[in-house]
Amino acid sequence: MSNQTLETLLQHRTIRKYSDKEIPKEIVDSIIEAGFRASTTGNMQVYSVVITQDAENKKKLWELHFKQNMVLEAPMVMTFCADFHRFNIWCKQRNAEPGYDNFLSFMTASIDAILVSQNVAVAAESYGLGIVYLGTTTYNADEIIELLKLPEHVIPITTLVIGYPAESPPLTDRLPDSGLVHYETYEDYTPQCIDEIYAEKEASQLTHDLIEENQLENLAQIFAYKRYTKKDNEYFSEKLLKTLVKQGFMKSL
Amino acid sequence: MSNQTLETLLQHRTIRKYSDKEIPKEIVDSIIEAGFRASTTGNMQVYSVVITQDAENKKKLWELHFKQNMVLEAPMVMTFCADFHRFNIWCKQRNAEPGYDNFLSFMTASIDAILVSQNVAVAAESYGLGIVYLGTTTYNADEIIELLKLPEHVIPITTLVIGYPAESPPLTDRLPDSGLVHYETYEDYTPQCIDEIYAEKEASQLTHDLIEENQLENLAQIFAYKRYTKKDNEYFSEKLLKTLVKQGFMKSL
Repeated sequence: MSNQTLETLLQHRTIRKYSDKEIPKEIVDSIIEAGFRASTTGNMQVYSVVITQDAENKKKLWELHFKQNMVLEAPMVMTFCADFHRFNIWCKQRNAEPGYDNFLSFMTASIDAILVSQNVAVAAESYGLGIVYLGTTTYNADEIIELLKLPEHVIPITTLVIGYPAESPPLTDRLPDSGLVHYETYEDYTPQCIDEIYAEKEASQLTHDLIEENQLENLAQIFAYKRYTKKDNEYFSEKLLKTLVKQGFMKSL
Repeated sequence: MSNQTLETLLQHRTIRKYSDKEIPKEIVDSIIEAGFRASTTGNMQVYSVVITQDAENKKKLWELHFKQNMVLEAPMVMTFCADFHRFNIWCKQRNAEPGYDNFLSFMTASIDAILVSQNVAVAAESYGLGIVYLGTTTYNADEIIELLKLPEHVIPITTLVIGYPAESPPLTDRLPDSGLVHYETYEDYTPQCIDEIYAEKEASQLTHDLIEENQLENLAQIFAYKRYTKKDNEYFSEKLLKTLVKQGFMKSL
């Protein structure tokens, strides 16, 4: 039981090596159009997309995204932003006082922006393009705001690098579906259940290599002590919350 | 220039009337599998999905989602949650101290959950199912947490109602793509530009009917004074932030 759309979703791979082949303008326009058909709260479309193609600007973005080389290699970077700025101007221009300078509105606009990004990702892949998400967007939102000249009430939430793949990686592992789905109410995990959910991931060659490379006891320690550490998470949480205040989505910390 | 995947995306309509036809188990499993192929930060998969099919539970959810009838009518409701709970247990069980009790981790997990939800939406539509997102999820996250028995470090972010459509609505309007895309840097909007972006939306029959019905000057006032008011947004912002504290993603307000 399948269809082409489902195949596009099931065949998703994150691409980390790109050819320098440009993406034709019609394809860029087409994936954007498909992106903007995504659902949006009250059909307000409180998001914006900033496209970076210029080599100088890509280099600056590359710095902000922890020098991940895909940003330099691929022809296009799309930054998806929660954006109430446009909506607010419209309201004011129509004699309506907007009330969107708060956390709920930030979440609403963020959800809108992420739904669009995933439609764009799927549309791009349907054309044979490769994509990678940059989670570093929320880490350095403040510097990205400066670089892209984002006004108040606009915050970058996620970023897609898009281009023609120069690699053909295998599908990456996923936890068993049954470990992530709950019926009716959340069924808490027993220790045995946790062991089962992570068993395949922990037994993989990739994990084995990572443990060797990092000289740690296991994969969980690699996540907690190398990749996504408490110290980094706390530092970037504070930074992001300050950005919410600065961009007008929170009164104070 | 098109393909079937792109057609699925372009033909998206929000469905608000559903038949009571059940969704075959194989299709539910298939759209979940497609959902979980979505990109995820560091392949951590820090999300969970809670499926509600039981009539009693749907009724309780319906109350929490402002009595939107789709929740009662459609056979399935899927609540997508940011979830660091499972990951935290795994870390602790592996002698790794997790550092995910902060705002950045909440955002990371929320983004993961929303990417999955959009893949599920697209997969469902590829099978001829209809979907509607419930933005009310972030409004009543605390009550939903109680109903679905979500533990600490789990917060519902968005909800999809899924079922077979009992209506065939036209495509809804979208703002012109050019008004939402910026090249290289954000180009601020002139008053004329705002007028142009909203012109088609404001001129529509739907808008005309809404203004008549609401007895207000224009569409912007309907958004700001009826649908998404400052008072509601501030009330639900405070409520949601308290939920972040309660669920262990923020130290205090």
